Amino acid sequence: MLTYTERAARVLQRIQELAAISEDDYGVTRTFGTPAFVRGSALVRSWMEAAGLVTRIDNIGNVRGRLLSKRVGARTFVIGSHIDTVVNAGTFDGPLGVLLGLDLLEQLAARPLDMPFHIELMAFSDEEGVRFHTTYLGSKVAAGSFDFSLLTKPDARGISLAEALDVMGGNVQELASDALPANEWLGYFEAHIEQGPVLWEKKIPVALVTAIAGQQRVGLTFTGMAGHAGTVPMDMRQDALAGAAEFVLAVEQYGLAHKERLVATVGKLDVRNSASNVISGEVTCSLDVRSADAAQLQAGCEALHAQALAIARRRDLGLTWSPIQQTAPVACDAEMNKLLAQAIAGAGHPVVELVSGAGHDAVPISAVAPATMLFVRCYKGISHNPLENAEQPDIAAALEVSERFLAQLINHHNHA
Amino acid sequence: MLTYTERAARVLQRIQELAAISEDDYGVTRTFGTPAFVRGSALVRSWMEAAGLVTRIDNIGNVRGRLLSKRVGARTFVIGSHIDTVVNAGTFDGPLGVLLGLDLLEQLAARPLDMPFHIELMAFSDEEGVRFHTTYLGSKVAAGSFDFSLLTKPDARGISLAEALDVMGGNVQELASDALPANEWLGYFEAHIEQGPVLWEKKIPVALVTAIAGQQRVGLTFTGMAGHAGTVPMDMRQDALAGAAEFVLAVEQYGLAHKERLVATVGKLDVRNSASNVISGEVTCSLDVRSADAAQLQAGCEALHAQALAIARRRDLGLTWSPIQQTAPVACDAEMNKLLAQAIAGAGHPVVELVSGAGHDAVPISAVAPATMLFVRCYKGISHNPLENAEQPDIAAALEVSERFLAQLINHHNHA
Repeated sequence: MLTYTERAARVLQRIQELAAISEDDYGVTRTFGTPAFVRGSALVRSWMEAAGLVTRIDNIGNVRGRLLSKRVGARTFVIGSHIDTVVNAGTFDGPLGVLLGLDLLEQLAARPLDMPFHIELMAFSDEEGVRFHTTYLGSKVAAGSFDFSLLTKPDARGISLAEALDVMGGNVQELASDALPANEWLGYFEAHIEQGPVLWEKKIPVALVTAIAGQQRVGLTFTGMAGHAGTVPMDMRQDALAGAAEFVLAVEQYGLAHKERLVATVGKLDVRNSASNVISGEVTCSLDVRSADAAQLQAGCEALHAQALAIARRRDLGLTWSPIQQTAPVACDAEMNKLLAQAIAGAGHPVVELVSGAGHDAVPISAVAPATMLFVRCYKGISHNPLENAEQPDIAAALEVSERFLAQLINHHNHA
Repeated sequence: MLTYTERAARVLQRIQELAAISEDDYGVTRTFGTPAFVRGSALVRSWMEAAGLVTRIDNIGNVRGRLLSKRVGARTFVIGSHIDTVVNAGTFDGPLGVLLGLDLLEQLAARPLDMPFHIELMAFSDEEGVRFHTTYLGSKVAAGSFDFSLLTKPDARGISLAEALDVMGGNVQELASDALPANEWLGYFEAHIEQGPVLWEKKIPVALVTAIAGQQRVGLTFTGMAGHAGTVPMDMRQDALAGAAEFVLAVEQYGLAHKERLVATVGKLDVRNSASNVISGEVTCSLDVRSADAAQLQAGCEALHAQALAIARRRDLGLTWSPIQQTAPVACDAEMNKLLAQAIAGAGHPVVELVSGAGHDAVPISAVAPATMLFVRCYKGISHNPLENAEQPDIAAALEVSERFLAQLINHHNHA
């Protein structure tokens, strides 16, 4: 029998094999529905097949493999993550969860076991949403919450989602039937690299994800009066950049003051017609606020809006405040979390609880199933970048924790 | 005899007539050496000729008209400004000073007068420096400080300055002889729109320019660590934009604390690979500091450099600080200023003293001649913009002040 270290090596090898399938030769880019994506899907399916799972590629392109229980009326426990990538991606974001799940099912399939529930591995086809500027196409189909109006949405080359599905061999008429009915879901588990630096800094391999943060995105414009940097006295200026700079610092200070419950970021800032000798007349910037606590999220945005207004008023600047996106926080399931925490502790690790600041397929799934997630330490928290890395010992730890979790779950249902 | 109001109307009419000569049909663009520029020069020369001046276009394209004294060994007093423009310019920046000077000489030429010195009107050919990214080509030739190494410098289309002069009819071999020898300069006077809002806000038509500010331009880069706006906790960030924002405010605060003696501006700020969900990893920005006081200018730049270093150190950011340009302040001549202040007061206006934050042809000329400048109020301080405007009563006031100044100067030299 293989050790966790040996199994982690195999997971890593498959991750690299999948990463070699890319739209280009110099990095990893495998966006939804491209020829590279389809080749990657076929490879993942072949692995599922070899593991003894009952496989299919559904009509949104999810690669699915089932390990069946013999019990009448058995429900389905799903292990999932995604196999699409951003442009010039890393190799772990998505594939780690899929190939860790594959390893778990390989082990289970090899041993004759009376399973109290079916287990389905889902390699979701579109989580990053790069091609159609969407969110969670694959997992929304599985969860039965797919928005059919998206089918006419074009990509950058004018190809609609429906046409893209057709090219992939999907049948738009059958999309609804790809949903696992709500009463058949027993639960959902997803392992994923943290994409943040907490585990790296704490030197701990894995963490329990208690919630996925909600998010509010806002676009702001500060409008002042452009002027000559040499000729307008300091006290006669309406400098839009100085106003925006004050807002950037207000956002940072608010975030630091509420750092246990929220993150707040100005990532974009553009000075219109900027020149070194021109006092800026107009600055646009972005605000991104995330929290697992819906009330805190709302309070944070309101407080920062009030601060932006105060800055603009005091500086005699115009201000526009345009909400762009709002998503509600999603809590992971308390029972599932408890089992996962026991598994982490049982494997000898401290139980670190994290809120995911990034979205995951667990978001749409949690609407129909008790979901939980395991974060795996990644190099310096770097993600969406070729430097993205998770090390073999941490993958081994994640395998052990996941296997313990699954064993507890099976045990629990065998004795229920 | 015409009133100042009537003369101002004629100056305005000529300004508009010159502004109608442009490289395009929808604005005023008359950069150095273009066909439009050459047509504009010919028009200005024809006006000088009609006024009875001895005219020529020199080898750098300056249009020059002399009113000659009959005295042996008479020196030359120069009235000047420029007739080139920026792209999509206003109509007053440059031409106001030239056509105000023309009006003054027209009056003098019409009356038989024993002049104690020659007066030369110089319409400089290149002050804005748009085409060859230079400064003061025209006035530097007149002042004898032209840098001959610029002759090989190409414009955006690869045409060298020497070739451009050839097309205009200039002879590169004769450039040096176009300088007015240092011992022949009696003084220099330039009227120009303020290009700032002080007179507009104070509701005063004209001001005495005591100095032209020196300038230091610096490029800065703050380097942090790019990261995911959702996953990196607030207290684990190295946010380059937050550091740059702190610097923007430090610059503003330093400028306000020293507002009587200095202006300081961050006009450009660029976030590298910016996205609303990415903590910025690198920000470049500009610093522009100007002061009439060389020591204050240097002290200001050093203080802001120290602040940038302190911000970078406290935030664990990288910092590069790259000086890009340094020009020394130029003081106007105390004797000339005294005469001009008397003329302003004599015309019934309060004597406002201003430092010019923008550069002018008076800068190179002041190296060889006692120079002074008169600023004329412009609409809201707007310049380098089609909205640029100076109103007829203010041009009338400038004519009266300039004429009083010139009369005092003539009187002074007649009795010297």
